[in-house]
Amino acid sequence: MMDKINHVIANIKPLDEKAIEEARRRQNNLTKPQGSLGQLESLSIQVAGIKGDPRPRIIHKVIFTLVGDHGVTQTGVSAYPSEVTPQMVYNFLRGGAAINVLARQVGARVVVADLGVASVLERHPQLKDKKVSLGTQNMAEGPAMSRDEAIRSIEAGIELVEEELTKGIDILGTGDMGIGNTTSSSAITATLTGADVTTVTGRGTGLDEEGWGRKVKVIQKALALNRPDPKDAIDVLSKVGGFEIGGIVGVILAGARYRIPVVIDGFISGAAALIAASLSPQVKPCLIASHQSAEPGHKKILEHLGLIPLLNLNMRLGEGTGAALGIFLVEASLKILDEMATFAEAGVSEKI
Amino acid sequence: MMDKINHVIANIKPLDEKAIEEARRRQNNLTKPQGSLGQLESLSIQVAGIKGDPRPRIIHKVIFTLVGDHGVTQTGVSAYPSEVTPQMVYNFLRGGAAINVLARQVGARVVVADLGVASVLERHPQLKDKKVSLGTQNMAEGPAMSRDEAIRSIEAGIELVEEELTKGIDILGTGDMGIGNTTSSSAITATLTGADVTTVTGRGTGLDEEGWGRKVKVIQKALALNRPDPKDAIDVLSKVGGFEIGGIVGVILAGARYRIPVVIDGFISGAAALIAASLSPQVKPCLIASHQSAEPGHKKILEHLGLIPLLNLNMRLGEGTGAALGIFLVEASLKILDEMATFAEAGVSEKI
Repeated sequence: MMDKINHVIANIKPLDEKAIEEARRRQNNLTKPQGSLGQLESLSIQVAGIKGDPRPRIIHKVIFTLVGDHGVTQTGVSAYPSEVTPQMVYNFLRGGAAINVLARQVGARVVVADLGVASVLERHPQLKDKKVSLGTQNMAEGPAMSRDEAIRSIEAGIELVEEELTKGIDILGTGDMGIGNTTSSSAITATLTGADVTTVTGRGTGLDEEGWGRKVKVIQKALALNRPDPKDAIDVLSKVGGFEIGGIVGVILAGARYRIPVVIDGFISGAAALIAASLSPQVKPCLIASHQSAEPGHKKILEHLGLIPLLNLNMRLGEGTGAALGIFLVEASLKILDEMATFAEAGVSEKI
Repeated sequence: MMDKINHVIANIKPLDEKAIEEARRRQNNLTKPQGSLGQLESLSIQVAGIKGDPRPRIIHKVIFTLVGDHGVTQTGVSAYPSEVTPQMVYNFLRGGAAINVLARQVGARVVVADLGVASVLERHPQLKDKKVSLGTQNMAEGPAMSRDEAIRSIEAGIELVEEELTKGIDILGTGDMGIGNTTSSSAITATLTGADVTTVTGRGTGLDEEGWGRKVKVIQKALALNRPDPKDAIDVLSKVGGFEIGGIVGVILAGARYRIPVVIDGFISGAAALIAASLSPQVKPCLIASHQSAEPGHKKILEHLGLIPLLNLNMRLGEGTGAALGIFLVEASLKILDEMATFAEAGVSEKI
């Protein structure tokens, strides 16, 4: 059942220490005080290790924006109706959404995939059909999906990456869209980090105080009813997850397996990263946190994974918008490593 | 004496409230939950107000990298020798420095100007000669420069912006290079914010503990000897400033006067912003803080000016490197404002 996933996990290798060492040596010889570019330096060294290349260049950039609906929206946990999910898919395909704008700016292509929208979408050459089911079930009344469906959603994410490999992927960003998915992500985060539900639940797309209280109660009920096993990440995904979240788990695992730096977006992508890291701790060194979301649960996730976000712009949109900005910064770090002159080349004196 | 500077200050206008209102209305109609892009939204609205255009676009981007030497380096306050200053100028002109790499990435041109390098530089078509003097005097033994020289350095910065206007400047970034200039910036920051010298003094390009202690003592001595008047920013600049810092003050004032968003770099640019804001509080709404430097004094400056940095990458290089990354983020915010579809255009349902 888990063959495909296990095969990917078995092929995730540690970072290349030789490439890391060479990249670090070069950074230390560039015409600037050592360490003075902070995370731009460490990022470039990390990517050298991921790619096994001491001077990596990035040409092909891909953002995976995965979409799914959540049965839990029946309980009034979102400020927007579920019909927005398919409407936003068409907006992505027409290029009018925030992720399209930012992806164009950074020169990334956006792969939009239906993992589980609750309606049948019109076919479109740019839309990947990976629908596992017509939305999840209401997790406040039972499991969001079956274990088979959870596995299938992760496999779909792996397939998405593998299908793009021939077109080239030098770096990837994760993204999500799905009304109700901060509710699911809060439930996942509470389960896998052990944090209290109230500390990892936010206002999503814009709940008021009363709506927030309702959302917390729904999550608490779903956890009490389904009792997801924190030692079994597939169980967590199936009980309180979402199809797009499972898909992102697959994208992250495949990124690590194919030595592609994985720039994770905000809270929903972070919940997927928790699941991926729980399935295989080896994915962690391949992860780059683009930003810290305004959703309070995201901070917990980043701490749990030991990731330092590059940006803190109080964003909470998802779609991969933070990842797109993060890809720009990774590219900046690699251009610094590749294009700057060394002290010797420039005839600049070194430290006294 | 101050005619040119006073004329610029007298022509700084408040932000355009009508453009701000129109930009805000458009942001609230774009296909995303209101406020979900955080600072990317507020940035675009601020720039609309600065430029008096509800949907501004950015084509011409300029980073001003101003260079000067500091007499105080005689006291051993820097880990690098002063000869690095001219060497780095030639590195800038050959395109091998960090600022060249990042400016290329964001499509900005770099204007390199000699405000007061302590040696005579070779002429170069890309080098602006605005030399006020061959480096400042040692502020630990007397004023760094005369009041006339301080005024002259600010005027030179104004001229640099004015000379670029015909080529187009839709946004500008500030930058600096000058061995010893964190010492000067700490002295300025302590004077204008009232903070204790020890809390606003860092390790610059890489001092050890002993070197840091020496640097603190030198600054304390310079302040005790020169007694810069915190109510007279020109006095502060002349007593403990630098020529490149004065030049950046002029660039900031001219940016505000010509309604150009001013993206300030790190600690040295921040010290210049303190002086500019002291000369005219009206510049503040035109300022955008690109990043928070690893230099401890920078945090104090940002708090004092009420600015929230976009990035926190633990950078401390200067040259305008943070400003270049900041310009990219401002551009992202304006593309969001300009290119995203509205709810009506995309047929997406609004909040329940």
